[in-house]
Amino acid sequence: MTHDATTAPRWTREELQAAFAQGYEIGRAATARGKVADYIPELAKADPGAFGLYMLKPDGETLSFGDAETRFSIQSICKVIILAAALKLRGFNETFSHVMMEPSGDAFNSILKLDTRSNLPFNPMINAGAIETVSLLLPDLGFEDMLACARELCLDPSVTLNEAVYNSEAQTGYRNRAIAYLLKSKGVMSADPEQTVDLYFRLCSLSVSARSLAGLGLVIANDGIDPFTGRILIDPEHVRTIQSIMFTCGMYDYSGKFSVNVGVPSKSGVGGGIVCAAKGPMGIGLYGPALDSFGNSCGAVKAMVHISQALRLHVFEY
Amino acid sequence: MTHDATTAPRWTREELQAAFAQGYEIGRAATARGKVADYIPELAKADPGAFGLYMLKPDGETLSFGDAETRFSIQSICKVIILAAALKLRGFNETFSHVMMEPSGDAFNSILKLDTRSNLPFNPMINAGAIETVSLLLPDLGFEDMLACARELCLDPSVTLNEAVYNSEAQTGYRNRAIAYLLKSKGVMSADPEQTVDLYFRLCSLSVSARSLAGLGLVIANDGIDPFTGRILIDPEHVRTIQSIMFTCGMYDYSGKFSVNVGVPSKSGVGGGIVCAAKGPMGIGLYGPALDSFGNSCGAVKAMVHISQALRLHVFEY
Amino acid sequence: MTHDATTAPRWTREELQAAFAQGYEIGRAATARGKVADYIPELAKADPGAFGLYMLKPDGETLSFGDAETRFSIQSICKVIILAAALKLRGFNETFSHVMMEPSGDAFNSILKLDTRSNLPFNPMINAGAIETVSLLLPDLGFEDMLACARELCLDPSVTLNEAVYNSEAQTGYRNRAIAYLLKSKGVMSADPEQTVDLYFRLCSLSVSARSLAGLGLVIANDGIDPFTGRILIDPEHVRTIQSIMFTCGMYDYSGKFSVNVGVPSKSGVGGGIVCAAKGPMGIGLYGPALDSFGNSCGAVKAMVHISQALRLHVFEY
Amino acid sequence: MTHDATTAPRWTREELQAAFAQGYEIGRAATARGKVADYIPELAKADPGAFGLYMLKPDGETLSFGDAETRFSIQSICKVIILAAALKLRGFNETFSHVMMEPSGDAFNSILKLDTRSNLPFNPMINAGAIETVSLLLPDLGFEDMLACARELCLDPSVTLNEAVYNSEAQTGYRNRAIAYLLKSKGVMSADPEQTVDLYFRLCSLSVSARSLAGLGLVIANDGIDPFTGRILIDPEHVRTIQSIMFTCGMYDYSGKFSVNVGVPSKSGVGGGIVCAAKGPMGIGLYGPALDSFGNSCGAVKAMVHISQALRLHVFEY
Repeated sequence: MTHDATTAPRWTREELQAAFAQGYEIGRAATARGKVADYIPELAKADPGAFGLYMLKPDGETLSFGDAETRFSIQSICKVIILAAALKLRGFNETFSHVMMEPSGDAFNSILKLDTRSNLPFNPMINAGAIETVSLLLPDLGFEDMLACARELCLDPSVTLNEAVYNSEAQTGYRNRAIAYLLKSKGVMSADPEQTVDLYFRLCSLSVSARSLAGLGLVIANDGIDPFTGRILIDPEHVRTIQSIMFTCGMYDYSGKFSVNVGVPSKSGVGGGIVCAAKGPMGIGLYGPALDSFGNSCGAVKAMVHISQALRLHVFEY
Repeated sequence: MTHDATTAPRWTREELQAAFAQGYEIGRAATARGKVADYIPELAKADPGAFGLYMLKPDGETLSFGDAETRFSIQSICKVIILAAALKLRGFNETFSHVMMEPSGDAFNSILKLDTRSNLPFNPMINAGAIETVSLLLPDLGFEDMLACARELCLDPSVTLNEAVYNSEAQTGYRNRAIAYLLKSKGVMSADPEQTVDLYFRLCSLSVSARSLAGLGLVIANDGIDPFTGRILIDPEHVRTIQSIMFTCGMYDYSGKFSVNVGVPSKSGVGGGIVCAAKGPMGIGLYGPALDSFGNSCGAVKAMVHISQALRLHVFEY
Repeated sequence: MTHDATTAPRWTREELQAAFAQGYEIGRAATARGKVADYIPELAKADPGAFGLYMLKPDGETLSFGDAETRFSIQSICKVIILAAALKLRGFNETFSHVMMEPSGDAFNSILKLDTRSNLPFNPMINAGAIETVSLLLPDLGFEDMLACARELCLDPSVTLNEAVYNSEAQTGYRNRAIAYLLKSKGVMSADPEQTVDLYFRLCSLSVSARSLAGLGLVIANDGIDPFTGRILIDPEHVRTIQSIMFTCGMYDYSGKFSVNVGVPSKSGVGGGIVCAAKGPMGIGLYGPALDSFGNSCGAVKAMVHISQALRLHVFEY
Repeated sequence: MTHDATTAPRWTREELQAAFAQGYEIGRAATARGKVADYIPELAKADPGAFGLYMLKPDGETLSFGDAETRFSIQSICKVIILAAALKLRGFNETFSHVMMEPSGDAFNSILKLDTRSNLPFNPMINAGAIETVSLLLPDLGFEDMLACARELCLDPSVTLNEAVYNSEAQTGYRNRAIAYLLKSKGVMSADPEQTVDLYFRLCSLSVSARSLAGLGLVIANDGIDPFTGRILIDPEHVRTIQSIMFTCGMYDYSGKFSVNVGVPSKSGVGGGIVCAAKGPMGIGLYGPALDSFGNSCGAVKAMVHISQALRLHVFEY
């Protein structure tokens, strides 16, 4: 057994097709075990049986299964875009003087450690960390700037704001407001808490599809470069940072298990989406609003376990 | 920029030599900022200026710098060996019905989550998880079996027990006893708590060198196969599990930062050692008893930041 | 030794005079060891050496020492008035379906337990409990009503709002806003969080003197009856509840020690005030803005230790 | 309404008889709602319907209802005896340099705060605090000394060790061992952890009756003096300390509510006993092994609510 370069991932069209087709079937079957998020009315309207999968490669090769074009709200996956924007605007050192990069082992919306271990949020993938990171964008970047950024990173000019979701979030996001005021009280947030959560609620309400997420995944997997234009969208060093943090913190309290069982930098949202930045490089977007107890799409997790094994996508499968 | 197979890591002897030589110098200089552990007298005797580095490849190529043959106690690095042994003896499912695989975000010796979030320790790299994992070895495996296992995995037949360290640990390890009794009280540990901590103390007291750790790192990086005999020492699926857990949980409260800045599955111990399972494959062992505030060897961390960047060892640097 | 009725507290004018005069001297000397609160600029302006003491009995007997007429902001002592008002407006059962009555053992502004143990604040003397209790007053009672209530309970028609303190609180009270939004997010608060904290900030900014606090203490010690008019201001059953909660929770993290060393139902505020409802009955108000590490007035605590011992005021000194 | 001495508690024989008879009936009826403790087999053998009540006054007057002579294990009520013995042996200052006197707001067997807030247990009524306090008795006092002390304080020479309960406790008391080792690891315990928990297990296994507890309650209520011999068993200052701590911490997580609803210094145990040191003075012992969710005897709590109201025993009912 050797690890030289010729063993790097490379698949025939048939191998790819087979792996994703099987992953899709496995995932679709698993949706029955999940439950659609209902903390805001707009999310509760989703079809629990919906399931879609989209794969995109730098050479333009794509695979699409099921509800790959259905629009849903990006929710926590926007944390990846927020982190990328903050790193670009403020740089590595300033960004990480406001938020740490350690897995927290606590729930995504926990404020426990913020009040007992550190004034800084543990990482940008939990709500407290994402809200702090959003505050770094202000006042230089507003929602229109971030919308443009999201469209660019998702390789999808049709990403828009879902006003209904935004209104729901804004009216009921008491816990996120509590987090923002807590950060403000600790002196680690300069921006106005209300403006900060407003921008955060808008970014969580971006309307995307599995296809948009595949675009985002590809840009990240491709070292931050848009493979179709050659433009550098994210600095390569920032890409490694983002991938590492997605790997250790991207899947809520299931992050450790996902890193063992799938081993691909990923981020999920309670809207049912998952973005994966896989070797190849390859961007994979999944959508299945039926969630497991961790808040991850049931179907998408099962699909990725299969696809990763079939294509040997685990980062420690050299 | 492309990601096809020809960009996989491959270095000339000169490139390797230069990267490690510079890493060694940087690391040695950084020892001045650390402090030798003193919670047991035996550890406090270490020379704070000591620093060593050893690299081993499957083709037998080695690099050795400084105190690479100095013996020190393995301490928490034994958790990797314990996990490998438990996975082999009990299998994946039984092992992970006793310990989770999530980063905890708490101190290595914390019992907070054990008492508030879950009856199962968060992962096998914190003390509670390692002690629970040791209990799974009993009564089938005793210290002699585990010593043999350690020698095999470290490719070093001269690994022995440091009796003085063991006696110190056994006499003062009150917190680890508390953890064992707490696990027993929760009904998740079948073995006797005293026998369990005794075996744990012995395994923490194994006497190794940077060279032994390079051996251990190479076996892990080489998919569990002893490259010199071709024997499968660890099942490949278990190797990926071990690497993922080392990546997310291996460096105490610095694990997230290390995964961003170095990006190589690693495990450190308060004896001053760090084992790294790097791409190539390559095993890297480091020794520098002067520790930073996280309990990691100051010099070894700095050395690895440099070496990883110079040789592009970060797992997300495809 | 007997416990029959004739041993109940009764003192000559000289005994009272001596005990309070000595208590005043001891307290005044102790002010040198404390530090004025500085979390809002208005508090930081207080004279750290100020110290005052006022005693009031139902027969109109009074004792006054030092800065007994100096005005300062009531701060956390308003929690007693808030609780009395909520009990009157909503009754015992409804009030305590929104807030518990257990000592928390955590800091006064902690949100730890709120997020881990219970959705209900532990008691009405911590910020979270007081904010929840204020929300129960809305929309039936506004600030003017509560001001009237405070004047009545303090037997002091000149209690007013300190606008400067209120403005400071309102502008910087981020943590209290965080608590209000957290309570709202848990579904235990019906009122609007912003209106709730606004009323809370106003009540914390009431301008009182040691004399006003002596009035409040006397009403409580006198079973809720204004001794000069005979009017029932607080229902006797509510008075016992208030006294019990003051006894177990009134002095921040020093409550247990104060109950052992002084043994008189009391409540302190970071403005430097302490109200005591003592046997006799007797109302004691103290003022000393130099605070100890628990947030209690240094001088006032020392004075009360002496006075309680001298006059045998401890509740378990029958 | 006045508070002068003539309103101190004084009841006719008929009033006492009626209050206790009604309390007994109310308590006996309430036993149906509770559940016998089953964490050790010996406790599970208790008759869930058993209920007994004993009242003792310094003039020798007694009242006895139901199973007032049934023997049961004292369990946590021994913490009162331990505290009295430690205060006598080591004095106030040394004792409280090892354990605090603050209510904790956490479960009786919690180790949370011990690991996050303070190295010292919060108070002597939680397990950690009682175990630390037991360690202060060693090596000067052994079990025989403490048995003699218990007999004296309970005015009951027939208090003995229940060997079966002790053996159960000793074999299964893993969590208490964990607590002892944790305290040892923090350097706050000088004694041997195994010897400490052994003595603690024995003291928890003392066999008492409601009558014994009435004796203990009377001694405490009578300022530490055995009313039948005039001997000072507990220093009066220590008695006030013990009563204050019983009042704020004696009834597990129900302590705050009990202080409001009953207002009498009391301590409960999971064996089903409650000791009350009431005004009068009066010692009240209760026994009902059917426990509520807090670990307090269902029937005994209900009985005391009635008796306290009927006889105006609340400490803040002057």
